[in-house]
Amino acid sequence: MDEQPAVRTVFGRTLTILGAFADAPDAGLTLTQLANRTGLPMTTVHRLVGQLEAERVLERTTGSRYRVGLRLWELGLLAPRAQGLRRLALPILEDLYEVTHQNVQLMVLDGTDAVVVERLSARDAVRLEGRTGGRLPVHATSGGVVLLAHADPEVLKAVLAEPMQRFTPATITSEPQLRAAASLARRQGWIVLRDHLTPGSVSVAAPVIDDRRGVVAAVSVVADGADGDRLVPAVRAAARAIGRALRPSPA
Amino acid sequence: MDEQPAVRTVFGRTLTILGAFADAPDAGLTLTQLANRTGLPMTTVHRLVGQLEAERVLERTTGSRYRVGLRLWELGLLAPRAQGLRRLALPILEDLYEVTHQNVQLMVLDGTDAVVVERLSARDAVRLEGRTGGRLPVHATSGGVVLLAHADPEVLKAVLAEPMQRFTPATITSEPQLRAAASLARRQGWIVLRDHLTPGSVSVAAPVIDDRRGVVAAVSVVADGADGDRLVPAVRAAARAIGRALRPSPA
Repeated sequence: MDEQPAVRTVFGRTLTILGAFADAPDAGLTLTQLANRTGLPMTTVHRLVGQLEAERVLERTTGSRYRVGLRLWELGLLAPRAQGLRRLALPILEDLYEVTHQNVQLMVLDGTDAVVVERLSARDAVRLEGRTGGRLPVHATSGGVVLLAHADPEVLKAVLAEPMQRFTPATITSEPQLRAAASLARRQGWIVLRDHLTPGSVSVAAPVIDDRRGVVAAVSVVADGADGDRLVPAVRAAARAIGRALRPSPA
Repeated sequence: MDEQPAVRTVFGRTLTILGAFADAPDAGLTLTQLANRTGLPMTTVHRLVGQLEAERVLERTTGSRYRVGLRLWELGLLAPRAQGLRRLALPILEDLYEVTHQNVQLMVLDGTDAVVVERLSARDAVRLEGRTGGRLPVHATSGGVVLLAHADPEVLKAVLAEPMQRFTPATITSEPQLRAAASLARRQGWIVLRDHLTPGSVSVAAPVIDDRRGVVAAVSVVADGADGDRLVPAVRAAARAIGRALRPSPA
């Protein structure tokens, strides 16, 4: 028998088990909870978890619970689109955070989602949806609209193929609205969206441009509604600074 | 034939491939480079990389290069010892950063290493060894000494079983020095190390104490040599604040 189909299944099941730890309590999950969350047979969960523990991808905690281990976290940090970008961008995001004291985000496009690769939030800032490592649909966030504005036409097609979820009365939910917002973001080089995902908030985003690869990320600030327009120059400057930081140094 | 040994080998080889991306260029690695870095046969690399790409654990870039994908990064963020802790600690670390404008670090113990789970650095601060997600031997860093001071005696035994690398003339390299530093850290609740990993720098660390699990992390600030003692209260207060943030909320 060919090894491949079985192996691929094992990979898939392994990723299903790891994904089941999303929103798990920090104390971890028991094998029974993992079987319930994944729908996999208990024997399979038992065997795969044992192997993942042996490789330190999972850690066992008290009460025979398991949690995702530091080794997987370290391997994940090798993702250049998240961590490489984050490392270069962080000092610039911190400067932007210090002058705004609001929510500063760095996002990249993955499929039809905007993935938050970094977020710095003041404790008294507007409360945000999602979390670092979380995903937001591109139509619902200024960073997503900026990423969409510069993405392959295929991405717009894929976004339009699905219904756009409404979060507030101001959320973009139609094709003409989305095309207009993307077009505006492309033309002026930034976008301001009001009350879009959270009532009373304003979200300002600008693209991070890599010389060789085009737009690779978006910087956004989410703030109180009153603050939108005056944040535009700071967000644009930060996005440009990150683009410059991406250039290979002449050394 | 039993499935298990083959599967375990596949897991091990898969992790070997993923680990080979450490210090890889952001543009990614070719299959040939992966075979060279891992010592695995080209056919194995080809097959496993194909499966990892199908599961979006690896992403293909230009020129048939591969890089670690966002999916692995997202799964890694599910590690509570890194990301859960980081999420709770970040606002407090940001406050510590704002009042010190030096290098602020959060570390956890893994084996005999101190793993940096977060670092905020001013661009004009003392240059640091390592990186977020990187490891430092516990004897060489104030955070490591604090973690060692509160760890199982087994950890000290394991550290002493290996030679302690010297980084500067002031690095702890003998058992009496290490025992004395750990004892001091335990007794007074913090430690100041000078010129230890980087000449001219001072490193101040204090333990993060979880009510149920004891010491789970260390906070440290690495600064110019002159600043050491006056940083102690700020570092201790931040470490205590993170410990308090770890408590389950009464709701």
